[in-house]
Amino acid sequence: MNVSELVERTLRGDRRAVARAITLVENASPELRGIMAGLAAHTGRARVIGLTGSPGVGKSTSTNALVAALRGRGESVGVLAVDPSSPFTGGALLGDRIRMQEHAADSGVFIRSMASRGHLGGLSWATPHALRVLDAAGFDTVLVETVGVGQAEVDIAGHADTTLVLCAPGMGDSVQAAKAGVLEIADVFVVNKADREGAHVTVRELRQMVAQVDRTPEEWKPPIVSTVAAKGEGVGELLERLDEHDRHLRATGERERRRHARAREEVVGIVLAELRARTDDLGGRADLDLLGTRVAAGGLDPYTAADEILKALG
Amino acid sequence: MNVSELVERTLRGDRRAVARAITLVENASPELRGIMAGLAAHTGRARVIGLTGSPGVGKSTSTNALVAALRGRGESVGVLAVDPSSPFTGGALLGDRIRMQEHAADSGVFIRSMASRGHLGGLSWATPHALRVLDAAGFDTVLVETVGVGQAEVDIAGHADTTLVLCAPGMGDSVQAAKAGVLEIADVFVVNKADREGAHVTVRELRQMVAQVDRTPEEWKPPIVSTVAAKGEGVGELLERLDEHDRHLRATGERERRRHARAREEVVGIVLAELRARTDDLGGRADLDLLGTRVAAGGLDPYTAADEILKALG
Repeated sequence: MNVSELVERTLRGDRRAVARAITLVENASPELRGIMAGLAAHTGRARVIGLTGSPGVGKSTSTNALVAALRGRGESVGVLAVDPSSPFTGGALLGDRIRMQEHAADSGVFIRSMASRGHLGGLSWATPHALRVLDAAGFDTVLVETVGVGQAEVDIAGHADTTLVLCAPGMGDSVQAAKAGVLEIADVFVVNKADREGAHVTVRELRQMVAQVDRTPEEWKPPIVSTVAAKGEGVGELLERLDEHDRHLRATGERERRRHARAREEVVGIVLAELRARTDDLGGRADLDLLGTRVAAGGLDPYTAADEILKALG
Repeated sequence: MNVSELVERTLRGDRRAVARAITLVENASPELRGIMAGLAAHTGRARVIGLTGSPGVGKSTSTNALVAALRGRGESVGVLAVDPSSPFTGGALLGDRIRMQEHAADSGVFIRSMASRGHLGGLSWATPHALRVLDAAGFDTVLVETVGVGQAEVDIAGHADTTLVLCAPGMGDSVQAAKAGVLEIADVFVVNKADREGAHVTVRELRQMVAQVDRTPEEWKPPIVSTVAAKGEGVGELLERLDEHDRHLRATGERERRRHARAREEVVGIVLAELRARTDDLGGRADLDLLGTRVAAGGLDPYTAADEILKALG
């Protein structure tokens, strides 16, 4: 499959092409330039929902329940699970394959894990690129899910229109952890496993946390939704809150602001990667050897020599 | 003092000008470009000797003893003490002021500490720049001294013609530490405090270490000199070994190779600092905002947008 073929088939929603394109993102392939150029005009339609939360709160189950609910009203759904800890590459992880079985016969669902090997942060263009592929492939909604660990958790808000932060009762530190950095990024809080003891405590703590933030009446106040994702309970209400946030985003211009910021960061990510690559290439430069000789002999000052290199890097 | 005045006075060996120039290095002043251009043609004459070793081996005392010995045969000496842990700036530290008293009336000696705040490594041009100032100011020998901690210890070899690694007996781990990374960088080993118990053990261990390296008969084999720097004992022999190494460097062309590598790294350091500064500037760019809008709207792909930024950075 060459680049134009891959682009054409991705735009038709061909699953193999979509999977191949995301693998190229994982591998930081030079073909991405051509692919992204081909897809650009067909992006911007998908609604991107980010999901994050500590390990054990039920992210995968919640994603599955959301997929089922969205499918139930006829929307197609792409799922991107970003694993910031995995050094893996080359396609679906075990968890995906299990999840895939549930939706195997459903051409309206596409689920894919992406090993980020430090992409979130390091290669900050990787997640936006993969979302771009799913967007261009025509999925109505794209769910991007990441483990709530460190920076990855906060970064996800930069990729999504709406960010869900999942908590669960009986995990003493879940609200504590939420306080640390996710309060700013959560558009909707979900207390999953709400049939467990202590669920009302978790809800109350979150409510207090949300109440402490100063807001004008026009500003969005993150709702707190209780769910039992494994049984599908509360997922209907969650969907309502998501739609409400979507209307809020559109009415206030915040949707465009977020998408602009996301595009901006994607461009910056590419610029940084390119500058880093140029820096790594410095070692092998013959002109640097010649300039070094002149500087060592006192015939040239090091800044003028650096200018020469920077010009050549241009 | 403007740049050309500063250059002119530095070249005359004016102490205030030299001190001011090194402060500008510490502060990463934009005036450095002009200063380095003015000094370039007058560099390359000083012999640069690096000194490193774990805390407590007697680096300052050894430096002082070497200064006295070099002064004794009529050479002028500049001393640069690089402190990689100090966040300080603005001139001489307490230790210097004490040491300065000894040489206060001697216009042939200049001693200066430089806080590196991560310069060694981070701003890798800082130490070479300061050495360049002392070189251009006409000092016959420049001693650069750094605490033997981590990367700073190994980096010093990149700045010097000859590198001294100091050990002391009764510091069980000094040879062990030496093994870890300084064996490759030591041109001369010094066992200081050689009147202490266990000195012969330290010497023997170093000798075994040096013997384990495969060398052709033409290659330099680091000698091991025993000193009691506080009493000046062994310093005469140390000076002989240093001169021997200097002759070896000149005879084999290794001196030019080292100076070429040093100049090359200085240029690379400036290039990296400039690329880093450009990257930091990305945040405030208006063109990035406009490009972000077009990318978000699907009118432009992120790579073409990145090309625009890179061109503008050019």
